[in-house]
Amino acid sequence: MMGSVLGSWVESPAKRAIVDFVSASSREGSSGFVPVAERIAAFDNDGTLWVERPAPVQIPFLLQKLIGRVELDPSLAEIEPYRSIINRDDAFFRAVADQEPEAVLSMLNGIGLAWEGTTPSEYESEVETYLASNHDERFGRPYTDLVYQPMLELFDFLRANDWRVFVCSGGGRDFMRVIAEGTWGLLRENVIGSAPEFEYREGQLVRQNTVRGNVALGPGKPEHIFARTGRLPAFSAGNADVDIEMLEVARFGLVIVHDDAEREYDYTDGAERILPLAEDLAWTLVSMKNDWNAVFKEGI
Amino acid sequence: MMGSVLGSWVESPAKRAIVDFVSASSREGSSGFVPVAERIAAFDNDGTLWVERPAPVQIPFLLQKLIGRVELDPSLAEIEPYRSIINRDDAFFRAVADQEPEAVLSMLNGIGLAWEGTTPSEYESEVETYLASNHDERFGRPYTDLVYQPMLELFDFLRANDWRVFVCSGGGRDFMRVIAEGTWGLLRENVIGSAPEFEYREGQLVRQNTVRGNVALGPGKPEHIFARTGRLPAFSAGNADVDIEMLEVARFGLVIVHDDAEREYDYTDGAERILPLAEDLAWTLVSMKNDWNAVFKEGI
Repeated sequence: MMGSVLGSWVESPAKRAIVDFVSASSREGSSGFVPVAERIAAFDNDGTLWVERPAPVQIPFLLQKLIGRVELDPSLAEIEPYRSIINRDDAFFRAVADQEPEAVLSMLNGIGLAWEGTTPSEYESEVETYLASNHDERFGRPYTDLVYQPMLELFDFLRANDWRVFVCSGGGRDFMRVIAEGTWGLLRENVIGSAPEFEYREGQLVRQNTVRGNVALGPGKPEHIFARTGRLPAFSAGNADVDIEMLEVARFGLVIVHDDAEREYDYTDGAERILPLAEDLAWTLVSMKNDWNAVFKEGI
Repeated sequence: MMGSVLGSWVESPAKRAIVDFVSASSREGSSGFVPVAERIAAFDNDGTLWVERPAPVQIPFLLQKLIGRVELDPSLAEIEPYRSIINRDDAFFRAVADQEPEAVLSMLNGIGLAWEGTTPSEYESEVETYLASNHDERFGRPYTDLVYQPMLELFDFLRANDWRVFVCSGGGRDFMRVIAEGTWGLLRENVIGSAPEFEYREGQLVRQNTVRGNVALGPGKPEHIFARTGRLPAFSAGNADVDIEMLEVARFGLVIVHDDAEREYDYTDGAERILPLAEDLAWTLVSMKNDWNAVFKEGI
């Protein structure tokens, strides 16, 4: 029976820790029992569910849009983040790739301006077109093929034990919602992320040039998860320093370690604090190299 | 089989319209089929799920808290909404009872100040204490007994057809979440409402003196539902003018008509626009007097 569970996971201490925690969570009377209502699992997206190198998937999509806006309105080149983007400012791009809150906020302001006045379905079409017509250069595959197979199996295992799985990312909520059902098998409503405001006018939702609440990074993750669910997650998984707060409120923390240059990437940038903290707080470290039989779906 | 469905509903056109719509929604190939992902049902709370007369249940709770704050800090009596409350300004109370956005916002500001710096569990304890130690004067019952039994049966019927049921109210999200699981059988995460911001500090969520996003009334209802679910509801139920926008985006609209002075109340205040509109837009009107065999759970 257990053989079919988490099939892409090596029979290692990491897998054992997950299986022990989740099995106990649904066994009444066990010391690790978690009441059904509290079985909320929260997953970071970039670097936890799919490849985030050379940059998170949403970044080239945004840059393409923002550059297109400057072409339509050259005066935008005078204001941030357009100025940094047009000038190919490496420090700015690095800060965005590392999800530094200030750089993410600057991007969000530029994004706000770029899509102001559009409807959700217009934005969704743009995301669909982008994902259908672009691919990852190294792997030569559509971005949605670069989701980690072991994590999808973890979703299945959690749900088989009556957990509700949420994705909570600093990335754009509405970008992720486009892929949630097809790629993750999660309903859109289980996606939490940074998001614009919408105003309802004459039967339509119209996008505003403002961010709703704060950015879902660092302390923003537990804040967003509570706003969304009324609880803090009991199970959290991440891979970067901006995931620390989401993990420290959970009973069980999982940290994906990018140590597999051959099958994926080998880096610790953006994870300088979470990796030592994981040892201190007994979070379960997952080595992509040693704990996963496969990184991607068979055939990729 | 159908006899056990919606048992407290009279066999009338209203029940037939609901049963026809929901049955078709889950029958593949039917012209009324609704894909599972889109089966989102949104319900207003006050006056749709429970008694809202003489005032919505949350109001005396809030007034008690705010009056208590002025006793601790008399200088508050100089600012709104404390001034109106202390002076027993009838126009203000009527505006709050009718959920006029400006009055609700003033209340929210007062509320923000009253609970600033507290944690979610402190607030939840106050709500639990209030609900356990107060009751409705006319019916002599705890407020949570005054939930409409036919609506709970409608939740069951929708869920049996793979709909997800959400409550979307201009009232306080975190107040409703306290009763969601016990009273409605809905998870806290299915409750959408007006809500404060929280800041995560040192492992704790701390309440701020600001409202997150706008108030979930009128156009705020579709805005909140989209933010929460990534979709607009396909089924909406309400009873007041502030529910119009939530109903006009849905495929099926249900309007509860308070016309039962004997078993509940008979009033159209706050519903002056929605009642004629329901006729125009072919929404299903539910007469509490004629369409419900029972209003409350047996024995109440």
